[in-house]
Amino acid sequence: MGATGLVGTEMLSVLEERGFPVEELRAFASPRSLGRRLPFAGGEVVCEVLADGCFDGLDLVIVDVDESISEEWAPKAAAAGAIVIDKSSAFRMDPDVPLVVAEVNPDDMRSLPRNIASCPNCTTMVLLVALAPLHRAAGLDRVVVSTYQAASGAGQPGIDELENLWTKLNGESRRLRRAALHPDLLALGDVWPKPIAGNVIPLAGSVKEQGYTSEEWKLVYETRKILHDDAIRVSATCVRVPVFVGHSMSVNLEFRRPMDKAEAVELLQAAPGLTLVDHGDGAPTALEGAGVDPVLVGRVRDDPSLPGAINLWVTGDNLRKGAALNGVQMAEVLLQQR
Amino acid sequence: MGATGLVGTEMLSVLEERGFPVEELRAFASPRSLGRRLPFAGGEVVCEVLADGCFDGLDLVIVDVDESISEEWAPKAAAAGAIVIDKSSAFRMDPDVPLVVAEVNPDDMRSLPRNIASCPNCTTMVLLVALAPLHRAAGLDRVVVSTYQAASGAGQPGIDELENLWTKLNGESRRLRRAALHPDLLALGDVWPKPIAGNVIPLAGSVKEQGYTSEEWKLVYETRKILHDDAIRVSATCVRVPVFVGHSMSVNLEFRRPMDKAEAVELLQAAPGLTLVDHGDGAPTALEGAGVDPVLVGRVRDDPSLPGAINLWVTGDNLRKGAALNGVQMAEVLLQQR
Repeated sequence: MGATGLVGTEMLSVLEERGFPVEELRAFASPRSLGRRLPFAGGEVVCEVLADGCFDGLDLVIVDVDESISEEWAPKAAAAGAIVIDKSSAFRMDPDVPLVVAEVNPDDMRSLPRNIASCPNCTTMVLLVALAPLHRAAGLDRVVVSTYQAASGAGQPGIDELENLWTKLNGESRRLRRAALHPDLLALGDVWPKPIAGNVIPLAGSVKEQGYTSEEWKLVYETRKILHDDAIRVSATCVRVPVFVGHSMSVNLEFRRPMDKAEAVELLQAAPGLTLVDHGDGAPTALEGAGVDPVLVGRVRDDPSLPGAINLWVTGDNLRKGAALNGVQMAEVLLQQR
Repeated sequence: MGATGLVGTEMLSVLEERGFPVEELRAFASPRSLGRRLPFAGGEVVCEVLADGCFDGLDLVIVDVDESISEEWAPKAAAAGAIVIDKSSAFRMDPDVPLVVAEVNPDDMRSLPRNIASCPNCTTMVLLVALAPLHRAAGLDRVVVSTYQAASGAGQPGIDELENLWTKLNGESRRLRRAALHPDLLALGDVWPKPIAGNVIPLAGSVKEQGYTSEEWKLVYETRKILHDDAIRVSATCVRVPVFVGHSMSVNLEFRRPMDKAEAVELLQAAPGLTLVDHGDGAPTALEGAGVDPVLVGRVRDDPSLPGAINLWVTGDNLRKGAALNGVQMAEVLLQQR
């Protein structure tokens, strides 16, 4: 479901790349994509629309559509006998639906009371790959995280807006140095109320309780659910940056017993799903993580302001590990468990 | 000194805009700019080079050159009878040189044992305008800051590199989505080892003690010196973003007695040199602060992970308040004090 979207397209690539054992693949999309042909495994699949009975005969339905559509259709897929892997936020906090990062809590998929398993938010997903091994060793007490999130986090419209403004503003770069004096420049933007090219927008998601955004609260609650630990305290600031693909995070971590850089490095080197970048300056950029599976972790440092705490930098492809890849990995976990 | 640089040019504009009482203005630059004419106050000044006796007859010398040149020439200017306002890092930590943010600690300029006063690093400067009023009220205990620093922090070469790559990568935006698979893209960059356009580089400055960069340590030590309080603990991660002008920061603050959002808002509304942005979404972008004097502060929130702590967002023009404007303001303070 959602086969023609940014994540849906990536999903088809990842299924193919990993040789996921597909007997029959069916692609569901919105009515405007009805009949569109999508390349898959050397052939093509033709897009269908959602309709009563459309899930009959399917073992697995992977969903990447808006929350409201998932709320309606994911339970129908489950009722039709499929297991649903849902990328939307619709069921993430449902106590009867596990919220799974494949490398972190795959065993949670053994219990599926609603036949639905949820995939975390892309930012939480990338972060948790790095936090889980540290949490297991020393118990996370407090996380202060500031994000640098890519435009593709807002889907194809986000990509398009960055691309359009990138081109448009190129000729205006002298004015960008004094942008506040050019109100016409500041009014550009459709997906975002301010220009995303050449700028940093310190608000991702919609504003909710206490002035924190939906993205920021997801980092709080999803982290606790995935790590099975409601005592973890999280403080998040989610910021949009003019990057096409790749969510990055600057993270300060406090633990229940002291952690240091040497131990953190050792734990991260042994952890699945990530690459610790300690060559050169040990500072993986967003572009270096865009297009590959592992989350990149770098700049591991003892915190000079608090003994036993550490700082680190995490970056990962929000469309792959942050979405499509984790969905396919969850399906692989299901196959292994059965 | 350094009249033709990015900050030097801004300095001439700011002196003119603010009607600073200049009887005679002389511009010093490197030999390759000898004889170059710079517009100033309706006329022109002709660039001179540094030479013995060049400072004779000057009351005030404002310096924006590399540390090593300042180390050599600033004391010569002081010996020639001028007061020196130095933008470089050469004398910032000298106990006989005050380190001044004009709105924060102007009284420190009353004692100038070396006839030199230093201007803080551009990042520290922007941050301190926002931190000072909060510190005075409740005593800063710990600061965790992640930065989003503009390319112009690396001077004209930084601007040029962002501009060049911006143009070059425009046609490659499809490849930027999978940049890790295109090593040629990742090798672009001269000022920075990785592309600055369409990317986030989690390392600003050069790596020093404990894996922290020169920029990060400046935030630690300059904050303490400006606020006269060595007990303030600071943990910083400095990151470069593809913005032309405007350094932004996501800041988590702990105090010696509890602070809350309401009090912070009240203190910030009354503070000099900043504008609290609480209209609309209260999320000032980097572009909105580029070209204007005040530092913009927004997203003031109680920290859900720690009662009494707060999160906020700060952005400011690194060439104006971060450099040229503060230098001129320091000169204005001198005039008032005499």
